[in-house]
Amino acid sequence: MSLDDRLRPDEVAIVAPPATDAGLVFIGRIHTPWTRRTETPHQGRPDGPICRIEVFAPWVPALDGLERSARIEVLYWLHRSRRDLVKQRRASDGFVRGTFSIRSPIRPNPIGSSIVELVAIEGANVLVRGLDCLDGTPLLDLKPDRRPD
Amino acid sequence: MSLDDRLRPDEVAIVAPPATDAGLVFIGRIHTPWTRRTETPHQGRPDGPICRIEVFAPWVPALDGLERSARIEVLYWLHRSRRDLVKQRRASDGFVRGTFSIRSPIRPNPIGSSIVELVAIEGANVLVRGLDCLDGTPLLDLKPDRRPD
Repeated sequence: MSLDDRLRPDEVAIVAPPATDAGLVFIGRIHTPWTRRTETPHQGRPDGPICRIEVFAPWVPALDGLERSARIEVLYWLHRSRRDLVKQRRASDGFVRGTFSIRSPIRPNPIGSSIVELVAIEGANVLVRGLDCLDGTPLLDLKPDRRPD
Repeated sequence: MSLDDRLRPDEVAIVAPPATDAGLVFIGRIHTPWTRRTETPHQGRPDGPICRIEVFAPWVPALDGLERSARIEVLYWLHRSRRDLVKQRRASDGFVRGTFSIRSPIRPNPIGSSIVELVAIEGANVLVRGLDCLDGTPLLDLKPDRRPD
């Protein structure tokens, strides 16, 4: 058990069923300036640094037309997160909250989602501002942001 | 091969690697009025019908505190979607577009995301407006909507 596996006071872990209901394929890799969790922002900012989303070979044709979207939704896999906490102590304010009531990376299915601003698309690379994930994070999906309500 | 598996003109399918990089667990089920893809809205509306998100037993304590969020992000598994198209013909306008440039359910990792309005939380059930998925869709995650930029 590493330091990260220790529960903080009043946190609750469950024994969850195995995560075998569906499978994911990593379709790319996200390159950011942040290599440690402690230095990674809690939420991306539109004036944040430019990050590079690398799309792996077979999916590059799927980028066609994405250049028309000023804002893109990015889904990624929070590959270093434990998945078994239903109550957790939030670092920012010290309160214990249900996992679904906070945007912590610790979740039963650790999928991160960000809305980012498109800077440029260069071949297999999508340059964006507004990410908040660790360098090397696996990419799951890219889609245009929703239309306004 | 079913009717749904046939490619429309100019659509492009790839042979993708197996989807074994990470595994998902279905943490609940979404109950909506829509049982056929053709009747399902393309995007949820804040004045749409109330839908019920059922959370399975071990994760119910993770709902604690979610009642404070007026808007919730819902992630779900588009369980009836093929995953191999990189170019597809959009039903709404007939144009062929890269998969990442549209919000079609057909994607390499068919994860849907919606921002919904919270109506009520009743035990293991979260009642919301603004969903656009089929009845019976597996639930992957719930989180409060992002803070505004």
